[in-house]
Amino acid sequence: MTSWLPTLKTATPEEGYDLAVKLARVAVKLTQPDAGQRDRMRPEYAENAEALIAVSQVVATHFATVAAANDYWWDAT
Amino acid sequence: MTSWLPTLKTATPEEGYDLAVKLARVAVKLTQPDAGQRDRMRPEYAENAEALIAVSQVVATHFATVAAANDYWWDAT
Amino acid sequence: MTSWLPTLKTATPEEGYDLAVKLARVAVKLTQPDAGQRDRMRPEYAENAEALIAVSQVVATHFATVAAANDYWWDAT
Amino acid sequence: MTSWLPTLKTATPEEGYDLAVKLARVAVKLTQPDAGQRDRMRPEYAENAEALIAVSQVVATHFATVAAANDYWWDAT
Amino acid sequence: MTSWLPTLKTATPEEGYDLAVKLARVAVKLTQPDAGQRDRMRPEYAENAEALIAVSQVVATHFATVAAANDYWWDAT
Amino acid sequence: MTSWLPTLKTATPEEGYDLAVKLARVAVKLTQPDAGQRDRMRPEYAENAEALIAVSQVVATHFATVAAANDYWWDAT
Repeated sequence: MTSWLPTLKTATPEEGYDLAVKLARVAVKLTQPDAGQRDRMRPEYAENAEALIAVSQVVATHFATVAAANDYWWDAT
Repeated sequence: MTSWLPTLKTATPEEGYDLAVKLARVAVKLTQPDAGQRDRMRPEYAENAEALIAVSQVVATHFATVAAANDYWWDAT
Repeated sequence: MTSWLPTLKTATPEEGYDLAVKLARVAVKLTQPDAGQRDRMRPEYAENAEALIAVSQVVATHFATVAAANDYWWDAT
Repeated sequence: MTSWLPTLKTATPEEGYDLAVKLARVAVKLTQPDAGQRDRMRPEYAENAEALIAVSQVVATHFATVAAANDYWWDAT
Repeated sequence: MTSWLPTLKTATPEEGYDLAVKLARVAVKLTQPDAGQRDRMRPEYAENAEALIAVSQVVATHFATVAAANDYWWDAT
Repeated sequence: MTSWLPTLKTATPEEGYDLAVKLARVAVKLTQPDAGQRDRMRPEYAENAEALIAVSQVVATHFATVAAANDYWWDAT
Protein backbone atom coordinates (compact mmCIF):
# COMPACT_ATOMS: atom_id res chain seq x y z
CA MET A 1 0.00 0.00 0.00
CA THR A 2 1.28 3.42 -0.88
CA SER A 3 1.60 5.99 1.89
CA TRP A 4 -0.16 9.32 1.33
CA LEU A 5 2.81 10.89 3.11
CA PRO A 6 6.00 9.03 2.25
CA THR A 7 8.25 12.01 3.01
CA LEU A 8 8.20 15.71 3.94
CA LYS A 9 10.90 16.42 1.35
CA THR A 10 9.89 18.33 -1.74
CA ALA A 11 11.97 19.57 -4.66
CA THR A 12 10.82 23.19 -4.43
CA PRO A 13 9.10 25.63 -2.03
CA GLU A 14 6.00 25.59 -4.24
CA GLU A 15 5.69 21.81 -3.94
CA GLY A 16 6.22 22.25 -0.21
CA TYR A 17 3.28 24.62 -0.10
CA ASP A 18 1.12 22.10 -1.96
CA LEU A 19 2.12 19.48 0.60
CA ALA A 20 1.08 21.84 3.40
CA VAL A 21 -2.36 22.21 1.79
CA LYS A 22 -2.62 18.42 1.60
CA LEU A 23 -1.59 18.04 5.26
CA ALA A 24 -4.34 20.50 6.23
CA ARG A 25 -6.99 18.57 4.31
CA VAL A 26 -6.16 15.13 5.64
CA ALA A 27 -7.06 16.09 9.21
CA VAL A 28 -10.51 17.05 7.97
CA LYS A 29 -10.90 13.68 6.23
CA LEU A 30 -9.83 11.78 9.34
CA THR A 31 -12.36 13.64 11.50
CA GLN A 32 -15.16 13.47 8.92
CA PRO A 33 -14.53 10.33 6.82
CA ASP A 34 -17.86 10.62 4.96
CA ALA A 35 -17.11 12.22 1.57
CA GLY A 36 -20.76 13.15 1.07
CA GLN A 37 -20.82 15.08 4.33
CA ARG A 38 -17.61 16.87 3.37
CA ASP A 39 -19.08 17.83 -0.01
CA ARG A 40 -22.16 19.17 1.72
CA MET A 41 -19.94 21.37 3.92
CA ARG A 42 -17.77 22.56 1.07
CA PRO A 43 -19.68 25.86 0.58
CA GLU A 44 -19.12 26.66 4.27
CA TYR A 45 -15.39 26.54 3.57
CA ALA A 46 -15.25 28.12 0.19
CA GLU A 47 -17.86 30.85 0.47
CA ASN A 48 -17.18 32.09 3.96
CA ALA A 49 -14.35 34.56 4.57
CA GLU A 50 -13.65 33.51 8.15
CA ALA A 51 -13.49 29.83 7.24
CA LEU A 52 -11.14 30.59 4.35
CA ILE A 53 -8.83 32.52 6.66
CA ALA A 54 -8.93 29.68 9.19
CA VAL A 55 -7.95 27.17 6.48
CA SER A 56 -5.15 29.52 5.50
CA GLN A 57 -3.93 29.47 9.11
CA VAL A 58 -3.74 25.68 9.16
CA VAL A 59 -1.82 25.71 5.88
CA ALA A 60 0.60 28.27 7.35
CA THR A 61 1.28 26.04 10.35
CA HIS A 62 1.97 23.02 8.15
CA PHE A 63 4.07 25.07 5.75
CA ALA A 64 6.34 26.04 8.67
CA THR A 65 6.90 22.35 9.36
CA VAL A 66 7.47 21.40 5.73
CA ALA A 67 9.85 24.34 5.21
CA ALA A 68 11.90 23.33 8.24
CA ALA A 69 11.95 19.71 7.04
CA ASN A 70 13.44 20.93 3.77
CA ASP A 71 15.98 23.26 5.40
CA TYR A 72 14.03 26.05 3.71
CA TRP A 73 15.17 24.68 0.33
CA TRP A 74 18.56 26.37 0.76
CA ASP A 75 20.21 23.86 -1.55
CA ALA A 76 17.42 23.75 -4.10
CA THR A 77 17.00 27.41 -4.88
CA MET B 1 0.36 -0.19 32.84
CA THR B 2 1.03 0.74 29.28
CA SER B 3 1.53 4.41 28.47
CA TRP B 4 -0.68 5.89 25.74
CA LEU B 5 2.37 7.92 24.70
CA PRO B 6 5.55 5.90 25.22
CA THR B 7 7.52 7.88 22.63
CA LEU B 8 7.22 10.61 19.99
CA LYS B 9 9.27 8.54 17.56
CA THR B 10 7.47 7.02 14.61
CA ALA B 11 8.79 5.00 11.71
CA THR B 12 7.29 7.19 8.99
CA PRO B 13 5.77 10.66 8.47
CA GLU B 14 2.34 9.09 8.01
CA GLU B 15 2.54 7.41 11.41
CA GLY B 16 3.72 10.73 12.80
CA TYR B 17 0.60 12.35 11.45
CA ASP B 18 -1.57 9.67 13.07
CA LEU B 19 0.19 10.36 16.36
CA ALA B 20 -0.57 14.08 15.97
CA VAL B 21 -4.26 13.26 15.54
CA LYS B 22 -4.10 11.14 18.69
CA LEU B 23 -2.37 13.92 20.63
CA ALA B 24 -5.15 16.32 19.59
CA ARG B 25 -7.87 13.95 20.78
CA VAL B 26 -6.41 13.17 24.18
CA ALA B 27 -6.73 16.77 25.35
CA VAL B 28 -10.44 16.58 24.61
CA LYS B 29 -10.76 13.38 26.63
CA LEU B 30 -8.91 14.90 29.59
CA THR B 31 -11.19 17.95 29.59
CA GLN B 32 -14.38 15.96 29.02
CA PRO B 33 -13.78 12.48 30.49
CA ASP B 34 -17.40 11.39 29.97
CA ALA B 35 -17.49 9.29 26.79
CA GLY B 36 -21.27 9.70 26.45
CA GLN B 37 -20.93 13.48 26.47
CA ARG B 38 -18.19 13.29 23.85
CA ASP B 39 -20.36 11.06 21.66
CA ARG B 40 -23.21 13.53 21.98
CA MET B 41 -20.89 16.33 20.79
CA ARG B 42 -19.45 14.33 17.92
CA PRO B 43 -21.80 15.83 15.28
CA GLU B 44 -20.66 19.32 16.33
CA TYR B 45 -17.13 18.29 15.35
CA ALA B 46 -17.80 16.26 12.28
CA GLU B 47 -20.63 18.18 10.64
CA ASN B 48 -19.47 21.72 11.22
CA ALA B 49 -16.90 23.24 8.89
CA GLU B 50 -15.42 25.64 11.44
CA ALA B 51 -14.99 22.92 14.05
CA LEU B 52 -13.33 20.66 11.49
CA ILE B 53 -10.88 23.40 10.57
CA ALA B 54 -10.16 24.06 14.24
CA VAL B 55 -9.42 20.36 14.80
CA SER B 56 -7.16 20.48 11.78
CA GLN B 57 -5.28 23.39 13.38
CA VAL B 58 -4.64 21.43 16.56
CA VAL B 59 -3.38 18.49 14.52
CA ALA B 60 -1.05 20.84 12.62
CA THR B 61 0.43 22.13 15.86
CA HIS B 62 1.06 18.62 17.18
CA PHE B 63 2.41 17.46 13.82
CA ALA B 64 5.06 20.21 14.02
CA THR B 65 6.18 18.80 17.37
CA VAL B 66 6.16 15.18 16.23
CA ALA B 67 8.02 16.05 13.02
CA ALA B 68 10.73 17.88 14.99
CA ALA B 69 10.95 14.96 17.42
CA ASN B 70 11.66 12.68 14.47
CA ASP B 71 14.16 15.03 12.82
CA TYR B 72 11.63 15.25 10.00
CA TRP B 73 12.27 11.56 9.25
CA TRP B 74 15.43 12.46 7.35
CA ASP B 75 16.91 9.04 7.98
CA ALA B 76 13.73 7.10 7.37
CA THR B 77 12.72 8.39 3.97
CA MET C 1 6.88 27.56 49.39
CA THR C 2 6.75 24.92 46.72
CA SER C 3 6.65 26.07 43.11
CA TRP C 4 3.82 24.74 40.95
CA LEU C 5 6.36 24.64 38.11
CA PRO C 6 9.79 23.70 39.45
CA THR C 7 10.99 22.35 36.09
CA LEU C 8 9.89 21.60 32.52
CA LYS C 9 11.67 18.25 32.64
CA THR C 10 9.55 15.12 32.80
CA ALA C 11 10.54 11.48 32.79
CA THR C 12 8.30 10.48 29.86
CA PRO C 13 6.32 12.02 27.00
CA GLU C 14 3.07 11.15 28.77
CA GLU C 15 4.10 13.11 31.85
CA GLY C 16 5.11 15.93 29.52
CA TYR C 17 1.61 15.93 28.08
CA ASP C 18 0.13 16.11 31.58
CA LEU C 19 2.38 19.07 32.31
CA ALA C 20 1.13 20.78 29.12
CA VAL C 21 -2.46 20.35 30.34
CA LYS C 22 -1.46 21.88 33.68
CA LEU C 23 0.26 24.81 31.95
CA ALA C 24 -2.93 25.46 29.97
CA ARG C 25 -5.07 25.48 33.10
CA VAL C 26 -2.92 27.82 35.16
CA ALA C 27 -3.45 30.72 32.76
CA VAL C 28 -7.19 30.36 33.29
CA LYS C 29 -6.73 30.44 37.07
CA LEU C 30 -4.56 33.54 36.89
CA THR C 31 -7.14 35.38 34.77
CA GLN C 32 -10.13 34.14 36.79
CA PRO C 33 -8.86 33.51 40.34
CA ASP C 34 -12.37 32.88 41.72
CA ALA C 35 -12.81 29.09 41.92
CA GLY C 36 -16.59 29.42 42.16
CA GLN C 37 -16.70 31.38 38.91
CA ARG C 38 -14.51 28.78 37.22
CA ASP C 39 -16.78 25.99 38.41
CA ARG C 40 -19.78 27.85 37.06
CA MET C 41 -18.07 28.09 33.64
CA ARG C 42 -16.96 24.47 33.62
CA PRO C 43 -19.94 23.25 31.50
CA GLU C 44 -19.03 25.87 28.86
CA TYR C 45 -15.67 24.13 28.52
CA ALA C 46 -16.65 20.55 28.86
CA GLU C 47 -19.94 20.43 26.97
CA ASN C 48 -19.11 22.66 24.04
CA ALA C 49 -17.21 21.24 21.09
CA GLU C 50 -15.59 24.48 20.03
CA ALA C 51 -14.36 25.24 23.55
CA LEU C 52 -12.95 21.72 23.86
CA ILE C 53 -11.05 22.12 20.60
CA ALA C 54 -9.73 25.50 21.75
CA VAL C 55 -8.47 23.96 25.00
CA SER C 56 -6.85 21.24 22.93
CA GLN C 57 -5.06 23.95 20.91
CA VAL C 58 -3.61 25.54 24.03
CA VAL C 59 -2.42 22.14 25.25
CA ALA C 60 -0.78 21.55 21.85
CA THR C 61 1.13 24.82 22.09
CA HIS C 62 2.40 24.03 25.58
CA PHE C 63 3.23 20.46 24.61
CA ALA C 64 5.50 21.80 21.87
CA THR C 65 7.40 23.78 24.51
CA VAL C 66 7.60 20.92 27.00
CA ALA C 67 8.72 18.49 24.29
CA ALA C 68 11.51 20.83 23.19
CA ALA C 69 12.53 21.35 26.82
CA ASN C 70 12.94 17.58 27.12
CA ASP C 71 14.78 17.16 23.82
CA TYR C 72 11.77 15.16 22.74
CA TRP C 73 12.69 12.50 25.32
CA TRP C 74 15.31 11.08 22.98
CA ASP C 75 17.28 9.67 25.90
CA ALA C 76 14.29 8.44 27.85
CA THR C 77 12.54 6.34 25.25
CA MET D 1 6.22 27.87 -16.40
CA THR D 2 7.29 30.26 -13.69
CA SER D 3 6.78 29.23 -10.09
CA TRP D 4 4.84 31.63 -7.86
CA LEU D 5 7.22 30.61 -5.08
CA PRO D 6 10.70 30.00 -6.49
CA THR D 7 12.45 30.65 -3.17
CA LEU D 8 11.85 31.79 0.41
CA LYS D 9 14.91 34.05 0.23
CA THR D 10 14.34 37.79 0.11
CA ALA D 11 16.82 40.65 0.08
CA THR D 12 15.30 42.49 3.04
CA PRO D 13 12.92 41.95 5.97
CA GLU D 14 10.33 44.16 4.26
CA GLU D 15 10.34 41.96 1.17
CA GLY D 16 10.09 38.98 3.50
CA TYR D 17 6.96 40.47 5.01
CA ASP D 18 5.47 40.97 1.55
CA LEU D 19 6.19 37.32 0.79
CA ALA D 20 4.40 36.32 4.01
CA VAL D 21 1.32 38.27 2.87
CA LYS D 22 1.48 36.47 -0.48
CA LEU D 23 1.79 33.07 1.22
CA ALA D 24 -1.31 33.86 3.28
CA ARG D 25 -3.33 34.77 0.20
CA VAL D 26 -2.44 31.76 -1.90
CA ALA D 27 -4.12 29.35 0.50
CA VAL D 28 -7.35 31.30 0.05
CA LYS D 29 -7.04 31.06 -3.73
CA LEU D 30 -6.42 27.31 -3.59
CA THR D 31 -9.51 26.76 -1.41
CA GLN D 32 -11.72 29.18 -3.37
CA PRO D 33 -10.37 29.22 -6.94
CA ASP D 34 -13.28 31.33 -8.25
CA ALA D 35 -12.03 34.94 -8.48
CA GLY D 36 -15.59 36.30 -8.63
CA GLN D 37 -16.47 34.56 -5.37
CA ARG D 38 -13.33 35.93 -3.74
CA ASP D 39 -14.19 39.46 -4.89
CA ARG D 40 -17.67 39.07 -3.48
CA MET D 41 -16.15 38.11 -0.10
CA ARG D 42 -13.58 40.89 -0.12
CA PRO D 43 -15.68 43.27 2.07
CA GLU D 44 -15.95 40.52 4.70
CA TYR D 45 -12.16 40.60 4.97
CA ALA D 46 -11.51 44.27 4.64
CA GLU D 47 -14.38 45.76 6.60
CA ASN D 48 -14.54 43.39 9.53
CA ALA D 49 -12.15 43.84 12.43
CA GLU D 50 -12.08 40.18 13.47
CA ALA D 51 -11.36 39.01 9.93
CA LEU D 52 -8.58 41.56 9.58
CA ILE D 53 -6.97 40.36 12.79
CA ALA D 54 -7.29 36.75 11.64
CA VAL D 55 -5.56 37.59 8.35
CA SER D 56 -2.87 39.32 10.37
CA GLN D 57 -2.39 36.10 12.36
CA VAL D 58 -1.83 34.06 9.22
CA VAL D 59 0.69 36.61 7.97
CA ALA D 60 2.50 36.42 11.33
CA THR D 61 2.79 32.65 11.07
CA HIS D 62 4.20 32.83 7.55
CA PHE D 63 6.53 35.68 8.47
CA ALA D 64 8.06 33.47 11.17
CA THR D 65 8.85 30.88 8.50
CA VAL D 66 10.22 33.39 5.98
CA ALA D 67 12.34 35.09 8.65
CA ALA D 68 13.85 31.75 9.70
CA ALA D 69 14.48 30.87 6.05
CA ASN D 70 16.47 34.08 5.73
CA ASP D 71 18.39 33.64 8.98
CA TYR D 72 16.55 36.75 10.13
CA TRP D 73 18.47 38.76 7.50
CA TRP D 74 21.52 38.89 9.78
CA ASP D 75 23.84 39.33 6.80
CA ALA D 76 21.63 41.76 4.91
CA THR D 77 20.99 44.37 7.56
CA MET E 1 13.04 55.38 33.08
CA THR E 2 12.73 51.74 33.94
CA SER E 3 11.83 49.32 31.17
CA TRP E 4 8.82 47.07 31.77
CA LEU E 5 10.77 44.36 29.92
CA PRO E 6 14.47 44.66 30.69
CA THR E 7 15.19 41.00 29.91
CA LEU E 8 13.53 37.70 28.99
CA LYS E 9 15.69 35.86 31.52
CA THR E 10 14.02 34.57 34.64
CA ALA E 11 15.40 32.55 37.51
CA THR E 12 12.80 29.79 37.35
CA PRO E 13 10.14 28.35 35.01
CA GLU E 14 7.42 29.70 37.27
CA GLU E 15 8.76 33.25 36.96
CA GLY E 16 8.97 32.65 33.22
CA TYR E 17 5.30 31.79 33.18
CA ASP E 18 4.48 34.98 35.08
CA LEU E 19 6.45 36.93 32.48
CA ALA E 20 4.45 35.26 29.71
CA VAL E 21 1.23 36.41 31.39
CA LYS E 22 2.64 39.94 31.57
CA LEU E 23 3.65 39.85 27.89
CA ALA E 24 0.09 38.82 26.98
CA ARG E 25 -1.44 41.69 28.95
CA VAL E 26 0.79 44.45 27.59
CA ALA E 27 -0.52 44.02 24.05
CA VAL E 28 -4.02 44.63 25.36
CA LYS E 29 -2.89 47.82 27.10
CA LEU E 30 -1.16 49.08 23.96
CA THR E 31 -4.29 48.52 21.87
CA GLN E 32 -6.70 49.88 24.52
CA PRO E 33 -4.72 52.42 26.58
CA ASP E 34 -7.80 53.59 28.49
CA ALA E 35 -7.73 51.82 31.88
CA GLY E 36 -11.40 52.57 32.47
CA GLN E 37 -12.37 50.88 29.22
CA ARG E 38 -10.25 47.86 30.13
CA ASP E 39 -11.90 47.63 33.54
CA ARG E 40 -15.29 47.76 31.88
CA MET E 41 -14.30 44.83 29.64
CA ARG E 42 -12.81 42.80 32.48
CA PRO E 43 -15.95 40.64 33.02
CA GLU E 44 -15.86 39.71 29.33
CA TYR E 45 -12.44 38.18 29.94
CA ALA E 46 -12.92 36.68 33.33
CA GLU E 47 -16.46 35.34 33.11
CA ASN E 48 -16.46 33.95 29.61
CA ALA E 49 -15.00 30.52 28.96
CA GLU E 50 -14.00 31.18 25.36
CA ALA E 51 -12.23 34.42 26.26
CA LEU E 52 -10.38 32.70 29.09
CA ILE E 53 -9.19 29.96 26.74
CA ALA E 54 -8.10 32.57 24.20
CA VAL E 55 -6.07 34.39 26.87
CA SER E 56 -4.57 31.06 27.80
CA GLN E 57 -3.51 30.58 24.16
CA VAL E 58 -1.70 33.92 24.09
CA VAL E 59 0.10 33.04 27.33
CA ALA E 60 1.12 29.69 25.81
CA THR E 61 2.64 31.42 22.79
CA HIS E 62 4.63 33.83 24.96
CA PHE E 63 5.68 31.06 27.32
CA ALA E 64 7.24 29.22 24.37
CA THR E 65 9.34 32.30 23.64
CA VAL E 66 10.34 32.89 27.25
CA ALA E 67 11.21 29.22 27.74
CA ALA E 68 13.45 29.24 24.65
CA ALA E 69 15.07 32.47 25.84
CA ASN E 70 15.97 30.71 29.07
CA ASP E 71 17.19 27.52 27.42
CA TYR E 72 14.28 25.85 29.16
CA TRP E 73 15.98 26.55 32.52
CA TRP E 74 18.27 23.57 32.03
CA ASP E 75 20.89 25.11 34.29
CA ALA E 76 18.49 26.42 36.89
CA THR E 77 16.54 23.29 37.68
CA MET F 1 12.70 55.57 0.15
CA THR F 2 12.98 54.43 3.74
CA SER F 3 11.88 50.91 4.57
CA TRP F 4 9.32 50.52 7.36
CA LEU F 5 11.19 47.35 8.33
CA PRO F 6 14.93 47.79 7.74
CA THR F 7 15.91 45.15 10.29
CA LEU F 8 14.51 42.79 12.94
CA LYS F 9 17.31 43.76 15.32
CA THR F 10 16.42 45.89 18.30
CA ALA F 11 18.56 47.11 21.17
CA THR F 12 16.31 45.78 23.93
CA PRO F 13 13.45 43.32 24.50
CA GLU F 14 11.05 46.21 25.02
CA GLU F 15 11.90 47.67 21.62
CA GLY F 16 11.47 44.18 20.21
CA TYR F 17 7.98 44.06 21.65
CA ASP F 18 7.16 47.42 20.06
CA LEU F 19 8.37 46.05 16.73
CA ALA F 20 6.08 43.03 17.16
CA VAL F 21 3.13 45.37 17.66
CA LYS F 22 4.12 47.23 14.50
CA LEU F 23 4.42 43.98 12.53
CA ALA F 24 0.90 43.02 13.65
CA ARG F 25 -0.55 46.34 12.51
CA VAL F 26 1.03 46.42 9.07
CA ALA F 27 -0.86 43.33 7.94
CA VAL F 28 -4.10 45.11 8.76
CA LYS F 29 -3.03 48.13 6.69
CA LEU F 30 -2.09 45.97 3.74
CA THR F 31 -5.47 44.22 3.79
CA GLN F 32 -7.47 47.40 4.44
CA PRO F 33 -5.46 50.29 2.93
CA ASP F 34 -8.24 52.83 3.52
CA ALA F 35 -7.35 54.76 6.70
CA GLY F 36 -10.91 56.01 7.09
CA GLN F 37 -12.25 52.47 7.07
CA ARG F 38 -9.66 51.43 9.65
CA ASP F 39 -10.62 54.35 11.90
CA ARG F 40 -14.25 53.35 11.61
CA MET F 41 -13.34 49.83 12.76
CA ARG F 42 -11.13 51.00 15.60
CA PRO F 43 -13.84 50.64 18.30
CA GLU F 44 -14.34 47.02 17.22
CA TYR F 45 -10.70 46.39 18.16
CA ALA F 46 -10.37 48.54 21.21
CA GLU F 47 -13.70 48.00 22.92
CA ASN F 48 -14.17 44.30 22.35
CA ALA F 49 -12.47 41.81 24.64
CA GLU F 50 -12.24 39.01 22.08
CA ALA F 51 -10.73 41.29 19.44
CA LEU F 52 -8.19 42.60 21.94
CA ILE F 53 -7.15 39.08 22.85
CA ALA F 54 -6.86 38.19 19.15
CA VAL F 55 -4.61 41.20 18.56
CA SER F 56 -2.55 40.10 21.54
CA GLN F 57 -2.16 36.66 19.90
CA VAL F 58 -0.81 38.18 16.70
CA VAL F 59 1.65 40.27 18.69
CA ALA F 60 2.77 37.13 20.55
CA THR F 61 3.48 35.34 17.28
CA HIS F 62 5.54 38.24 15.93
CA PHE F 63 7.34 38.67 19.25
CA ALA F 64 8.52 35.06 19.01
CA THR F 65 10.07 35.86 15.63
CA VAL F 66 11.65 39.12 16.74
CA ALA F 67 13.02 37.51 19.91
CA ALA F 68 14.63 34.70 17.90
CA ALA F 69 16.05 37.24 15.45
CA ASN F 70 17.73 38.96 18.38
CA ASP F 71 19.00 35.76 19.99
CA TYR F 72 16.68 36.64 22.85
CA TRP F 73 18.88 39.67 23.59
CA TRP F 74 21.40 37.47 25.41
CA ASP F 75 24.20 39.93 24.71
CA ALA F 76 22.17 43.06 25.39
CA THR F 77 20.79 42.28 28.82
